[in-house]
Amino acid sequence: MRSDGRQPGDLRSFSVTLHPNKYAEGSVLIEAGDTKVLCTASVEERVPPFLKGQGKGWVTAEYSMLPRATHSRNQRESAKGKLTGRTMEIQRLIGRALRSVVNLNALGERTITLDCDVLQADGGTRTTSITGAYIALALAIHKLDSTVKFGNYPLTDYLASISVGVMQETPVVDLNYEEDSKAKVDMNVVMTGARAFVEVQGTGEEAPFSRKELDAMLSLAEESILKLIELQKDTLGAAGARIGGGKA
Amino acid sequence: MRSDGRQPGDLRSFSVTLHPNKYAEGSVLIEAGDTKVLCTASVEERVPPFLKGQGKGWVTAEYSMLPRATHSRNQRESAKGKLTGRTMEIQRLIGRALRSVVNLNALGERTITLDCDVLQADGGTRTTSITGAYIALALAIHKLDSTVKFGNYPLTDYLASISVGVMQETPVVDLNYEEDSKAKVDMNVVMTGARAFVEVQGTGEEAPFSRKELDAMLSLAEESILKLIELQKDTLGAAGARIGGGKA
Amino acid sequence: MRSDGRQPGDLRSFSVTLHPNKYAEGSVLIEAGDTKVLCTASVEERVPPFLKGQGKGWVTAEYSMLPRATHSRNQRESAKGKLTGRTMEIQRLIGRALRSVVNLNALGERTITLDCDVLQADGGTRTTSITGAYIALALAIHKLDSTVKFGNYPLTDYLASISVGVMQETPVVDLNYEEDSKAKVDMNVVMTGARAFVEVQGTGEEAPFSRKELDAMLSLAEESILKLIELQKDTLGAAGARIGGGKA
Amino acid sequence: MRSDGRQPGDLRSFSVTLHPNKYAEGSVLIEAGDTKVLCTASVEERVPPFLKGQGKGWVTAEYSMLPRATHSRNQRESAKGKLTGRTMEIQRLIGRALRSVVNLNALGERTITLDCDVLQADGGTRTTSITGAYIALALAIHKLDSTVKFGNYPLTDYLASISVGVMQETPVVDLNYEEDSKAKVDMNVVMTGARAFVEVQGTGEEAPFSRKELDAMLSLAEESILKLIELQKDTLGAAGARIGGGKA
Amino acid sequence: MRSDGRQPGDLRSFSVTLHPNKYAEGSVLIEAGDTKVLCTASVEERVPPFLKGQGKGWVTAEYSMLPRATHSRNQRESAKGKLTGRTMEIQRLIGRALRSVVNLNALGERTITLDCDVLQADGGTRTTSITGAYIALALAIHKLDSTVKFGNYPLTDYLASISVGVMQETPVVDLNYEEDSKAKVDMNVVMTGARAFVEVQGTGEEAPFSRKELDAMLSLAEESILKLIELQKDTLGAAGARIGGGKA
Amino acid sequence: MRSDGRQPGDLRSFSVTLHPNKYAEGSVLIEAGDTKVLCTASVEERVPPFLKGQGKGWVTAEYSMLPRATHSRNQRESAKGKLTGRTMEIQRLIGRALRSVVNLNALGERTITLDCDVLQADGGTRTTSITGAYIALALAIHKLDSTVKFGNYPLTDYLASISVGVMQETPVVDLNYEEDSKAKVDMNVVMTGARAFVEVQGTGEEAPFSRKELDAMLSLAEESILKLIELQKDTLGAAGARIGGGKA
Repeated sequence: MRSDGRQPGDLRSFSVTLHPNKYAEGSVLIEAGDTKVLCTASVEERVPPFLKGQGKGWVTAEYSMLPRATHSRNQRESAKGKLTGRTMEIQRLIGRALRSVVNLNALGERTITLDCDVLQADGGTRTTSITGAYIALALAIHKLDSTVKFGNYPLTDYLASISVGVMQETPVVDLNYEEDSKAKVDMNVVMTGARAFVEVQGTGEEAPFSRKELDAMLSLAEESILKLIELQKDTLGAAGARIGGGKA
Repeated sequence: MRSDGRQPGDLRSFSVTLHPNKYAEGSVLIEAGDTKVLCTASVEERVPPFLKGQGKGWVTAEYSMLPRATHSRNQRESAKGKLTGRTMEIQRLIGRALRSVVNLNALGERTITLDCDVLQADGGTRTTSITGAYIALALAIHKLDSTVKFGNYPLTDYLASISVGVMQETPVVDLNYEEDSKAKVDMNVVMTGARAFVEVQGTGEEAPFSRKELDAMLSLAEESILKLIELQKDTLGAAGARIGGGKA
Repeated sequence: MRSDGRQPGDLRSFSVTLHPNKYAEGSVLIEAGDTKVLCTASVEERVPPFLKGQGKGWVTAEYSMLPRATHSRNQRESAKGKLTGRTMEIQRLIGRALRSVVNLNALGERTITLDCDVLQADGGTRTTSITGAYIALALAIHKLDSTVKFGNYPLTDYLASISVGVMQETPVVDLNYEEDSKAKVDMNVVMTGARAFVEVQGTGEEAPFSRKELDAMLSLAEESILKLIELQKDTLGAAGARIGGGKA
Repeated sequence: MRSDGRQPGDLRSFSVTLHPNKYAEGSVLIEAGDTKVLCTASVEERVPPFLKGQGKGWVTAEYSMLPRATHSRNQRESAKGKLTGRTMEIQRLIGRALRSVVNLNALGERTITLDCDVLQADGGTRTTSITGAYIALALAIHKLDSTVKFGNYPLTDYLASISVGVMQETPVVDLNYEEDSKAKVDMNVVMTGARAFVEVQGTGEEAPFSRKELDAMLSLAEESILKLIELQKDTLGAAGARIGGGKA
Repeated sequence: MRSDGRQPGDLRSFSVTLHPNKYAEGSVLIEAGDTKVLCTASVEERVPPFLKGQGKGWVTAEYSMLPRATHSRNQRESAKGKLTGRTMEIQRLIGRALRSVVNLNALGERTITLDCDVLQADGGTRTTSITGAYIALALAIHKLDSTVKFGNYPLTDYLASISVGVMQETPVVDLNYEEDSKAKVDMNVVMTGARAFVEVQGTGEEAPFSRKELDAMLSLAEESILKLIELQKDTLGAAGARIGGGKA
Repeated sequence: MRSDGRQPGDLRSFSVTLHPNKYAEGSVLIEAGDTKVLCTASVEERVPPFLKGQGKGWVTAEYSMLPRATHSRNQRESAKGKLTGRTMEIQRLIGRALRSVVNLNALGERTITLDCDVLQADGGTRTTSITGAYIALALAIHKLDSTVKFGNYPLTDYLASISVGVMQETPVVDLNYEEDSKAKVDMNVVMTGARAFVEVQGTGEEAPFSRKELDAMLSLAEESILKLIELQKDTLGAAGARIGGGKA
């Protein structure tokens, strides 16, 4: 049924390359099928004005697609002079999602910025960005820990994200671009290692969906995210040892 | 339990004033408790460039808050020179939601723009905007119908929206600002008269939520939206007669 | 002679609704015929950089029209990314006019921002904004006085504004949109309770005007502004008791 | 009484250099005391979109000050990325004023843009710009006439402008910067050769002014503008021969 | 003498990966030491307005660095809302350089846009972008040729670029970031396969340079560019067969 | 051979008018043939943020053309809301060139801004700006010296700039606009009094150039710049006495 022969609940092939960038405190190149996102985590010893002097840290994200990440070339947002609504929406989502598993008090007065640059897009760029940015964030916090020696570890849980949709009345997971443009629902789910939902965003502009379809999509997403979190654990290895740990 | 004495499933008092604007093809002032939104529908006999020559229409929305709609004054986006991410996200949501119940082919080559201007904000401005903008849209299409005599009526169903959240482990509906800032989940649901979901957006940045909580919130939202759709039917009266009707 | 049956010197029906906004320190909805402007006064305990440390306050204004305040929809200035020259000109005028009756030293290091948002426009929006913003300002200063107990009262006089023009060789006052587009001169006058002029702005782009016409228009404006100041006094009642008063 | 020894009704020394620019269809360097403005008129054989196909022309103006035209250096508006309200107000004023003496139908489908660039500012830059731009405009129309052979001459009258104010209770004309910052009223008047007012803009932000003061200022302005129009006639000579003339 | 043990005339290790992007008509990932640039060529069947209807094509370039391409994170130009002068200067240089070896008439009415996105920066990003973009351009034109069957081949020669400088009185080639910040001259040279100069840009802000030093740097650059052109020939292989060829 | 009868190595007539601006610390009007640039130097007792507290000064430049400085009118960059790449490139070049002969430590914590406003353009505006801005800078430093009494004089050498090109196989100097548009190479050279190169920028977009042509152009530029430096010395006279001098 699916163009690339997958079953409805099959993820595309995911691969993660660690440290593609020699400067960033944490970096990964994450690939989900033909979707490729370079995620870097940059640590700065300062916080935005609204947090100054509170002893708390901040985690934020920026998202961008290279002009030719897609079938036809898009104009650069820097040339347009402004971010599109889509970009703003996605980078707000990535930032919120990551902050949900960070103890900002434990992080201390520093900012970690996750840059998610889509080198090639074939559906699922926002969910892949979240899953990859989480790893870059974990690497950066692990690196910080070697000098800061956190009492409470700032990263409280694992976190990953996947897209789900409905094609020909069947719920399917991890849609590529071609599937995405045919699916009647577009839903993105972010979940923690403890199976708690952080974001559930379903849109049925083309065709509204029933409660039953919603339930089936949520179940499919849960199952897939747990697989991605296993991948994150394998990838991080010892660098993930203190995640979710309280006092040192 | 709730600051204004409501039960968890109680809506605030909703009121709708028809035709507050003498120029717009459709207009309402909708009030949900102390949240007040002026919604106008403007019909123009042209479509955006990407739709030219296809015989289809377009429905889009813009959202804005007056500077002193809130406790403290916010800078105008026109003075800043750009829209915030929050505004873009909300107006994209309103537009998508409304288009889900419009047959753009039936509408023909014209654009209807829904302007949702928040005069006073006390929580739920985006959901109230959707519920009110729907009525303004219905009025404008009804007015158009008197001259155009639509074969297929462009409005395919009713549509309303409400917010739900979790306070002290209890799912509650239609949160005011004070509740919203205390609730652990912030969820907005848009649904049609046929009980189909158009948008489900739940965010647990402060505290992730369980599948069980999600289910309870969805049920509460469904029930409340059906009440709002009843209100829309009463308000529109004869102006809603052809909604959902196929051939004339 | 006039489309709505008025005599040349007749004002339209003016109405003022106090406190339409629950957050602002002062607010009014002012209606002049079909022109409706929501004016809010916001007090902030800080001054712009150029006034810091001088012990003086500041009064400023912003003006905006809702997109469908007019016959056909206008693009939002926030979407365009900049203010039009017309908007800048008007908000500079409102600010200057109000400051002429405020003792900024007596006000102390605080800023009062008057937001004039035109909900519906039928001519005279700038003059109606000044007349309404004055009342919102007076309410805010009166409210401040209850805690600050001003020695010298910061509001030194009443202030109102009206438009005048020449139609078919006859000077007329308070033109509505239809009259405005036919009149050969467009003139706006701002005057204090002491009958002193604060702004006189007459433009004869379509047809220059004689000294005699100018004199007749000024007389008509004076007379009408005094009526509006009576309305302000009635509306403010006790809240206006200290206006123009020196030491407490 | 005046810092440079002038009597209240004395103009500063005015000088006009014709054709300082070899490309422009009309150009003058006008000097009023130490205020120096370079005015160029550029003719283009097209009109703005809102006038297309109506057989009418357009006259518009732009105004700018060089960064060091003033005592201390100002940031360039091109570097700021936007025009200030002051600049917009002034260039709108110049354009309106000039259009009042142009028969746009007679001009035909072409645009004349007057650029007024202030090389050095010592008060009165907007009024000096109008007086100088008028001459540049007259030169450009005269040049056009040599090829177009206008039936009705597009320039219907002479036009000049001056500032007036009140210093130490005395009305004075053509204030320099030092006087301007001390004067209690700031008023700019634009008048035609037929002694008709085109713009009257008086502002008493610092101190409101009486009807009597207004009358005295207007008289002083009238008298001074007539002198400037004499200067324009002398300067233009034969190039002004058809001004105000109807059919050829 | 050099930090990485190279001799003054040694290039860093260069590597070129073909087709890293599945959508672009031509693409390469070029690496010069730790400098990594992703270059894509996008073909569009339209030309900019200033070329419409002339039967000619256009080649243009855009350049950008990912925020964490450098030691510390830079703000995105899309977030700033404008391009920096450095970016504009570089992308104008890349475009001019490439156009010098393209016969725009032979190309026909189409635009090729070269996007040079710096994934990691360690000196020489502009010269590496030119050398890489040339290959992407050659791939795109080769691909076009398979359908268009060019009469005259649009690519008239090979083209590459390198940086040179002076360190401790010795001219050196292909400086990395550390060397670049110590060198007293910064010079970029672009040359064709026929050894003709296309761009020579030398800057001695820190220390002006002598004619003798300039001569030595130019010789070093020539020699190195010829090596890079050999690399381009090897990399392109058959795809470069028609380069420089006249009639088919 | 040249349109104005000059020999290949002939400069146009250069003239320099000192102090055309009464406010600036240094100012000149420089004319090279029909190219006219007004250069002002503004001294401010502060430095940009990146230099604060280092005891060093800063020299920077801004460049702009009046809209009608050219054959046809150009849109103002202030109206466009951004600087073009060309403007940015030129003003960066002017700033770098001037800084190469300024000892920023000797200057102390102050900024000198050179504004180069092109009143009329006929080729060579960037090189003429550099040559003129140098004189304005020298005047401003000389004026500063009268109060500051510099120990080490901040200006370390003379500096001027000229353009060279190749027309009909012959190298020519100081091209006017007509020549510039026909020449096959466009090269700008900046050199100090000590004959050291500060900038060498040659572009052969239309036709690449040989090493031999490059050498001939450089020789022609050197010879011409030395003439311009003689002109600068004559113009500055005593105001240039300390240039290049070490301790007082």
